[in-house]
Amino acid sequence: MRWSTYFLPTLKEVPVEAQIPSHRLMLRAGMICLSSSGIYTWLPFGLRVLKNIETIVREEQERAGAQEVLMPTIQSADLWRESGRYDDYGKEMLRIRDRHEREMLYGPTNEELITDVFRRFVKTYRDLPKNLYQIQWKFRDEIRPRFGIMRGREFLMKDNYSFDIDKEGAYNSYRKMFEAYLRTFARLGVVAIPVKADSGAIGGDMSQEFHVLAETGESKVFYDVAFEELRHKDLASLDIEKLRNLYAAAEEKHDPQTCPVAPENLKEARGIEVGHIFYFGTKYSEPMKATVTGEDGQLIPVEMGSYGIGVSRLVAAIIEASHDAAGIIWPESVAPFCIGLINLKVGNPDTDKASETLYDALQKENVEVLYDDRDLRAGSKFADMDLIGLPWQIVVGGRSLSMNKIEVKCRKTGLREDLSINEVIKKFTKSTISDGKCV
Amino acid sequence: MRWSTYFLPTLKEVPVEAQIPSHRLMLRAGMICLSSSGIYTWLPFGLRVLKNIETIVREEQERAGAQEVLMPTIQSADLWRESGRYDDYGKEMLRIRDRHEREMLYGPTNEELITDVFRRFVKTYRDLPKNLYQIQWKFRDEIRPRFGIMRGREFLMKDNYSFDIDKEGAYNSYRKMFEAYLRTFARLGVVAIPVKADSGAIGGDMSQEFHVLAETGESKVFYDVAFEELRHKDLASLDIEKLRNLYAAAEEKHDPQTCPVAPENLKEARGIEVGHIFYFGTKYSEPMKATVTGEDGQLIPVEMGSYGIGVSRLVAAIIEASHDAAGIIWPESVAPFCIGLINLKVGNPDTDKASETLYDALQKENVEVLYDDRDLRAGSKFADMDLIGLPWQIVVGGRSLSMNKIEVKCRKTGLREDLSINEVIKKFTKSTISDGKCV
Repeated sequence: MRWSTYFLPTLKEVPVEAQIPSHRLMLRAGMICLSSSGIYTWLPFGLRVLKNIETIVREEQERAGAQEVLMPTIQSADLWRESGRYDDYGKEMLRIRDRHEREMLYGPTNEELITDVFRRFVKTYRDLPKNLYQIQWKFRDEIRPRFGIMRGREFLMKDNYSFDIDKEGAYNSYRKMFEAYLRTFARLGVVAIPVKADSGAIGGDMSQEFHVLAETGESKVFYDVAFEELRHKDLASLDIEKLRNLYAAAEEKHDPQTCPVAPENLKEARGIEVGHIFYFGTKYSEPMKATVTGEDGQLIPVEMGSYGIGVSRLVAAIIEASHDAAGIIWPESVAPFCIGLINLKVGNPDTDKASETLYDALQKENVEVLYDDRDLRAGSKFADMDLIGLPWQIVVGGRSLSMNKIEVKCRKTGLREDLSINEVIKKFTKSTISDGKCV
Repeated sequence: MRWSTYFLPTLKEVPVEAQIPSHRLMLRAGMICLSSSGIYTWLPFGLRVLKNIETIVREEQERAGAQEVLMPTIQSADLWRESGRYDDYGKEMLRIRDRHEREMLYGPTNEELITDVFRRFVKTYRDLPKNLYQIQWKFRDEIRPRFGIMRGREFLMKDNYSFDIDKEGAYNSYRKMFEAYLRTFARLGVVAIPVKADSGAIGGDMSQEFHVLAETGESKVFYDVAFEELRHKDLASLDIEKLRNLYAAAEEKHDPQTCPVAPENLKEARGIEVGHIFYFGTKYSEPMKATVTGEDGQLIPVEMGSYGIGVSRLVAAIIEASHDAAGIIWPESVAPFCIGLINLKVGNPDTDKASETLYDALQKENVEVLYDDRDLRAGSKFADMDLIGLPWQIVVGGRSLSMNKIEVKCRKTGLREDLSINEVIKKFTKSTISDGKCV
């Protein structure tokens, strides 16, 4: 993509309304734009990140055997009356009357709707287990939306729902999702600690929240230092059983008296909630009569769980966990482009030629490149490129070009090396790149 | 995918509420499920089709230089007051009050929102042209939703918007989209005729609707027989200039007295509207002050166009254009799976072994296979497979297996051939398949 034609409006000024780094950086990097209170438009650069996250979330759901559906955003109030939650939900639920004065709502979550789908079609234990997921926009009418998309009103969530014939099956479904979540967050390049949690309005007796560690996190979490191995991201070696049994708790649930971890192994940090998994048994299946016939022909209400990941919130959480004073530092798996190619002297035949050669060669290898071909001062281009945080920068036209060398900089480490054009192409070709992303 | 674990609830009975083939077939093939009046949940099988269509639409938008954004579903009424459309829109607009009693709405279209995004960031003619698109859910509160997703209330639409400095640029943007639409519909396996149209509530003086030809179409269209070349789908040879100048008109616009086509070359057919392209100049940019500075430093309101494709409606339109008495006949580009593999004698070691061998081999080649491993009567399995309409059927366990042969049937032509396992694998491997789809 050539920046000169790309709709990527970066801002030099720090927006006064933004109080946390991710909000400031998403506005400055032209990722989002406020539409109305707590509601945003995703601009092309931000949307690429959102979609990269979606893809990883989807792949790990499919790997765990979940099947994708898509429920509507607008629901009938009737189903929520069946479960008894219509009144419970209060003002965070966006309530709507259609032209026939029927009571509708914009779904803040979908337990009722999916339970209704399930009960219509699944009648026997032989069709269990089932796990259905979707990635769909939700709405919660926050009284004071703030922190950009971190606490917005319209947000993108992956939610899924498991259906089992008995508790044992339900625990197994829960365990599968626990593993899928660890894999998902590790692939996204963040450390997410699974802490014991209250189950809140959804109800149930087993529930964990996943908190991305970041200094600006909203809540304090305590966890066994052994969780730090999640930083390594070598998924093959993740010891799920070990991780499952490690201690982690949100501040409200943490009691130093009964904590089983020795003080020297206990870590304390701030975290941002990005996922939540619940087992809640028959809370919905009983009132909504989602039953199947068991082996003995009896009708049995199904055992359910639900599992959420805040997909849009993750964009902000990743930035909170990975930025510096100059801007964002994208983990390679979610970066909107792998490489930012800077032509420092647009119009100079040598730098133009070297830049175009690199751009063409990398495009041909399916490497995602943002080519800054704008006619701006070097300082602005460097600042913009650091701000938007692509993993690699290729700088054409600096001092090194006189030696037929091009500078390659790693955004995360700041390390630079001078390479020939061919060495640059080799560095970023298929051996090290998969699906256009650096690995 | 193994059908025994797949959430694909087919129905034998014809649903009484469904009046047109696509509605009946989508319900019977387990693609969608009614959630509330005019609002549907997409089940896994239906969602795969929707996503395949989305992918083709997206690829052709990108090829034409459009850049993807994502606007929220919920908008503030204020912007619609600026353009003057808030009152015009009437009861089809779903109007909402949030907890602070602010007037909001669920977007039925997005001219106002995108014009607002544009005017905030684009200030000079140097940044033009721009073309921004999204694929997002919309809501129109139809008084009588019917025909399933064909005239539903919540629907998925690709909408995009072009911004140019002058009329000439705007016409050029319009022409690019005209071509992108022809390519899109051809790739989707349907014939879509671009007919002259009224521009309706959006306004403007150049506009065409694309109608998919289908006997059950809602409107009558007249067109030059030369459009029939669109059936060939050989995109490289599409003569866009020629097609642009051919005659086509909706019934209201067609006047036999002035029609330039000789009667023997004029065709009449029924069509379903699936796309609409508009040039409307400064209708929004003037009242909303979306101006840029021109070469001479003067402020100029941008020339705009908007372009829609009914993505969810296309699922139904494709079925209307391509089905028979037994069920759906998917064009290969949008088929949810390329192949349906039927094991006629589940539990029989020979057929189980042959089926599993084929399933594994085809999966390894990234061919999308739905493997019917359910323990049902042959008649039910044949009927279900015809109903769901996958392009190819592989039948294991019929008479031919005694001769070490397997039957391969083409759903569209009904032609059958008996092949050895290796011949079947060869038939569907990479040479003929691209990205898991038959080509």
